[in-house]
Amino acid sequence: MGSRAHIEDVLRRAFALAANGPARGLNPQVGCVLLADDGTVLAEGWHRGAGTAHAEVAALAELPAGAARGATAVVTLEPCNHQGRTGPCAEALIEAGVARVIYSVDDPGDSSSGGAARLRAAGIDVEGGVLRAEGEALLGDWLQAARLGRPVVTVKWASSLDGRAAAADGSSQWITGSAARLDVHRRRAAADAIAVGTGTVLADDPSLTARDADGGLLPSQPVPIVFGRRETPADAALRRHPHEPVFADGSDLPAQLADLHGRGIRSLFVEGGPTLASAFIAAGLADELLVYLAPVLLGGPKLALGELGIASIDEALRLELASVEQLGDDILVVARPVKGH
Amino acid sequence: MGSRAHIEDVLRRAFALAANGPARGLNPQVGCVLLADDGTVLAEGWHRGAGTAHAEVAALAELPAGAARGATAVVTLEPCNHQGRTGPCAEALIEAGVARVIYSVDDPGDSSSGGAARLRAAGIDVEGGVLRAEGEALLGDWLQAARLGRPVVTVKWASSLDGRAAAADGSSQWITGSAARLDVHRRRAAADAIAVGTGTVLADDPSLTARDADGGLLPSQPVPIVFGRRETPADAALRRHPHEPVFADGSDLPAQLADLHGRGIRSLFVEGGPTLASAFIAAGLADELLVYLAPVLLGGPKLALGELGIASIDEALRLELASVEQLGDDILVVARPVKGH
Repeated sequence: MGSRAHIEDVLRRAFALAANGPARGLNPQVGCVLLADDGTVLAEGWHRGAGTAHAEVAALAELPAGAARGATAVVTLEPCNHQGRTGPCAEALIEAGVARVIYSVDDPGDSSSGGAARLRAAGIDVEGGVLRAEGEALLGDWLQAARLGRPVVTVKWASSLDGRAAAADGSSQWITGSAARLDVHRRRAAADAIAVGTGTVLADDPSLTARDADGGLLPSQPVPIVFGRRETPADAALRRHPHEPVFADGSDLPAQLADLHGRGIRSLFVEGGPTLASAFIAAGLADELLVYLAPVLLGGPKLALGELGIASIDEALRLELASVEQLGDDILVVARPVKGH
Repeated sequence: MGSRAHIEDVLRRAFALAANGPARGLNPQVGCVLLADDGTVLAEGWHRGAGTAHAEVAALAELPAGAARGATAVVTLEPCNHQGRTGPCAEALIEAGVARVIYSVDDPGDSSSGGAARLRAAGIDVEGGVLRAEGEALLGDWLQAARLGRPVVTVKWASSLDGRAAAADGSSQWITGSAARLDVHRRRAAADAIAVGTGTVLADDPSLTARDADGGLLPSQPVPIVFGRRETPADAALRRHPHEPVFADGSDLPAQLADLHGRGIRSLFVEGGPTLASAFIAAGLADELLVYLAPVLLGGPKLALGELGIASIDEALRLELASVEQLGDDILVVARPVKGH
């Protein structure tokens, strides 16, 4: 089976295999390498997306029946223990007669975890947690979303230095400069979905696309999600988005986020307006805040964040600063709510 | 009289002499060196504060009558041309028979300027603007205040990242951390005066002193100024300030600032609350803004800045960022209004 260094090399090969699979969607990127007793590679496999074989099954399928008996399976994620559409991988490994399973990251799923215990119960030698940091980095938002049972939520707003999103008459184009706006579009493109409230739809008619400096569409586009009870007009710009918009009334944000997670949405970029941003924050559903502060003062009633249900300073929502940087003339503050507050 | 390099050396000697005088108060720091024809020093003088001899007169007083005839006067500031309490320096130099006057910074005063013209009219060789940047740096706030006809105004506030100065119930201690608070006290000590509105006096009963980390008084204390129409209670903490408080009703900020300037106040640190800060900014009387942003969200109605009379984004008060730095867990943004906006 080879040394620890050899096993780690093989696991890194499995990470590379995993990266062949789709980086977005319901399922994680997973890779698997099957090793013979002498450490040589018997077969490789990776997961090609929801509805197709898991990585372990894909690797086993490369071999004739019986050829995996006594082998070592090196996997990037704990083999699953649930039926799903493809059958549990733990059972497949047991049936194939593998002797040993080495994996990186524990399966965070409520229904899919327990694979390691199942394998051990069948007498298989199991070791997890190998190169865990690399394994977690590979899984990215999928892992955090799986642990949360909902998409990872980033709440973004742009405001004047005095906390206003717009002037008294509602005009706001452009508070921030071009560098900040490009940064927003880049982050939109990196998110699985983008959310706005119906107030913003009706007021600004946003396209909710991710665009480059020339206004052209970036290659990757987030799914537009509209929260709220009001109708989105038939001619709204977001109806011409490359992805079909999803509508949710916002009455039960945790349930509606769980539903989005069930559709394969791992990351959600909440763009506003103030009502939606405040609702996410007040509900404890903001994992990261992006605040673009423009060097401008506005005064007046159009606040970037509304009511958070905080009565006294002791109840303040404390944040941890992740970074503070200047983007052109603007300031970008990235912060995360301190857990337990 | 010596070379250009020699003249500059002598002017730097005059800057050093000037620094012997008081750095605060009505009058600027000024130094003067009188040179013989061969470039040797005949006499030196500096201004020791309002009501005492100006630097040129102090230097001339070192010499017996007639000894300055044909001399060169090297002065840090254009010789004054007004009577004041001590008589115009330009006249004194003419009477003494100096042949040449070299100075650094033009006198910015409406009533005191014109000295160079007066000297030239008397046939004296005059050169101004030598080492001007160094001369202006020496004069500091005095010069800017003299040009403005009022103290240089810094408006400071501390807010949550969403622009609130306090929670809904008014509680605010402490939004910012100890590093930010110490920075504020250091800047208070550097200012000639500190201003609050009566709302803040009644709500917070501030002492308006500059203190160190242990709560001890710093060596230099700003004069407390209270703006507003409401009475300051007889037992208010600020009445125990080392300096006698100044009260102004705030009905005519430009006139009241000019009055403070006439009392020798060169720099004013406006600490709030929101009403006073907004009034200074809306009136175009804020030269510098210090915004301490705490990594905290509060929501609610207690804004750090109130109404600025800005209706549309085109009227936004544009700022130029001077610096953005982290102070402990907080962010300090220093910005200046862009002129012409």
